[in-house]
Amino acid sequence: VSEQRITEWLTARAGRLPRGFRVGIGDDCAVYAPPPGQELVFTTDMLVEDIHFTRATSTLSEAGLRCLTRGVSDIAAMGATPVFALLSLATPRSMTEAQVLSFLSGVLRGGVPLVGGDLSTAPVITADITVCGATPRGRAGLRSTAKAGDHIYVSGPLGASALGLRTKRGAAWQRHKNPRARTDLALRLRQHATAAMDLSDGLALDLSRLCLASRVGAELQALPIFPGASESDALFGGEDYELLFTTRRPMQRAGLHWIGRMVNDCRSRIWWQGEELPAKGWDHRSGT
Amino acid sequence: VSEQRITEWLTARAGRLPRGFRVGIGDDCAVYAPPPGQELVFTTDMLVEDIHFTRATSTLSEAGLRCLTRGVSDIAAMGATPVFALLSLATPRSMTEAQVLSFLSGVLRGGVPLVGGDLSTAPVITADITVCGATPRGRAGLRSTAKAGDHIYVSGPLGASALGLRTKRGAAWQRHKNPRARTDLALRLRQHATAAMDLSDGLALDLSRLCLASRVGAELQALPIFPGASESDALFGGEDYELLFTTRRPMQRAGLHWIGRMVNDCRSRIWWQGEELPAKGWDHRSGT
Repeated sequence: VSEQRITEWLTARAGRLPRGFRVGIGDDCAVYAPPPGQELVFTTDMLVEDIHFTRATSTLSEAGLRCLTRGVSDIAAMGATPVFALLSLATPRSMTEAQVLSFLSGVLRGGVPLVGGDLSTAPVITADITVCGATPRGRAGLRSTAKAGDHIYVSGPLGASALGLRTKRGAAWQRHKNPRARTDLALRLRQHATAAMDLSDGLALDLSRLCLASRVGAELQALPIFPGASESDALFGGEDYELLFTTRRPMQRAGLHWIGRMVNDCRSRIWWQGEELPAKGWDHRSGT
Repeated sequence: VSEQRITEWLTARAGRLPRGFRVGIGDDCAVYAPPPGQELVFTTDMLVEDIHFTRATSTLSEAGLRCLTRGVSDIAAMGATPVFALLSLATPRSMTEAQVLSFLSGVLRGGVPLVGGDLSTAPVITADITVCGATPRGRAGLRSTAKAGDHIYVSGPLGASALGLRTKRGAAWQRHKNPRARTDLALRLRQHATAAMDLSDGLALDLSRLCLASRVGAELQALPIFPGASESDALFGGEDYELLFTTRRPMQRAGLHWIGRMVNDCRSRIWWQGEELPAKGWDHRSGT
C-alpha cells in the first residue's frame, strides 16, 4: 500500500474544494477562509472493525459510507449543512491497496468534500471522520434548549438498526448497514425545533441526554416502532440515526412522529407507561 | 470505563472555550463562530500503539501529549496558532478508566482546548487528533510556494528522534518520546518564509514533497546533525518535528540552520554531495 498513490487517488476524487478553501489534501493542513456570517459546527466519529461493522457482513465500501454518515448525522442534528471532512484511516497490513481504496470510495460516496486526512496501520480497520458543517450564525440547534411543555418528535419509526443487527436480513438489515443522515429534513425543521439531536445510541439514552442538557424531564406517550422490531429495539437499540427534536407548538408533517412532551423534572427522568425509563442504550465502547 | 464519567472529567478540564465558541464538549457538535478576517487551517493525525509508541517505553501521558504534538506541529508548519482540537480515542477493553484518563491528561498538557471527541474500543490504543489553527487571512504558509534560488533552512539539528528510537537513552530518547512543536518560531518566521512544512518523515522525504509541490529541485549543501546521530538519521529519520522552510533572502538567526538552495528542476530532484538523494523516509504505515 503506497501512501503516495492513495493520496493521489484521493486528490483526484475528493470533490471540488468548497468555497473559501485555498488548499485541500496535499499540504500540512487544509486552508479555509470561512464565508462571513456563518457558524461552523464540528464533530468527530470513530468507526472500528468488529465494533461498528464486520467484514463478514459489510462491504468495505459500505463501511466507508457508514463512517461518513455517522459524522454527517451529527451535523444534521445541529440543523447544519456538511461543508468538508477529514479522514484518518488505519488499516491492517494484510489489506491490499484495492481494499483501502474500496473503503475510501465508500466515504466519498457520501458526497462531502474530503480536504485532508492521515493513513496508518492498525490490527483492525480504524477510521475516524471529522466533519465540519455550517449554519447561519447563531442558528445551530442544541440539545440544551428544550423547555417543559415542548412537544417531542422523532423523524421515523425506531428499532430498525437493532432489528437488522439481530436478524441480518430484509429492510432492517439494509438500514443497519447503510444508515442515512437526515440532513434535508433537519434543515427544514431548523426554524421550528427548540432542541435537537440525532439518535445514535437509542431513544432512552439519547432522550435522557437531551433532558439532562435541558434540565427537564420527558413523558413518552407514543413509540413508533419499525415493522418487526420490538419495543426494546425501539427504546434501547442504537444507530437508527433518526432525528430527535422538540417544538414549542405541535407539528403535523408527513414522516414526523409525535412521541410525547417535555415536563418539569429537576432529575431529568423519562416516563413511559407509568414507569421510569432507564437511561441505557447502545454503548460505543462495547459495541452492544 | 464509563463514557459518561470520562466526558464529565474532560469537560471539567478541557480548557476555557476559545473566543467564538458557543458550545464545546457535550452536544452533537461543537459550535464556533470564527472571528472575521481569519483563515482556519485543519489537520488530522493518528497515533497508533506499537506503530508510533509502545507502552513499554512511553507513559500513557507521554503518548497523549505526543498525539497532540503531531497535530500542533502541522499547524505550526502553516505559521498558524492552534485554536482548538477534537480527539477520538479507541482503547483496549483491558485498559482501566485511570489509564484512559492518563492518556487524556497528556493530550490536555499540550494546552490546546479540546472541544469534542469520540470514545471507542480497539485492540490497541488508537488516537486521532484533529487540530484547527488560525492565521490572518491569506497568510497561511504553504509547501507549494518555494522558488528556484530560495534559501533552505531547518529549525534545529536533525536525527535526534531516529537516534533516540535506536538507542533508547539520553537526550535523543527524550526528544523522541516528547517532541515539541515549533509554534513560537513558526509565528516569528511567517513573514519571511516563502514555503514551509514540518519534518515528520525525515528531511529527504519531506524536502522532496516540498520540491514536488513547488515544482523545483533542491541542492543540499549542509546538514546539521544532532550530536551522536548519523547522517542517515538526519536525512531519513522521522519525527524530528523541526520546521523546514525557504526564504528569498538569507537569514541569520540563532537556532536556524541554512542547508542549501532551491534550484530549477522539473523533476524535483534533491542533490547531496553530488548525488541524487532518494525520496525515502519514515513510513507511518509501517512505523519504520
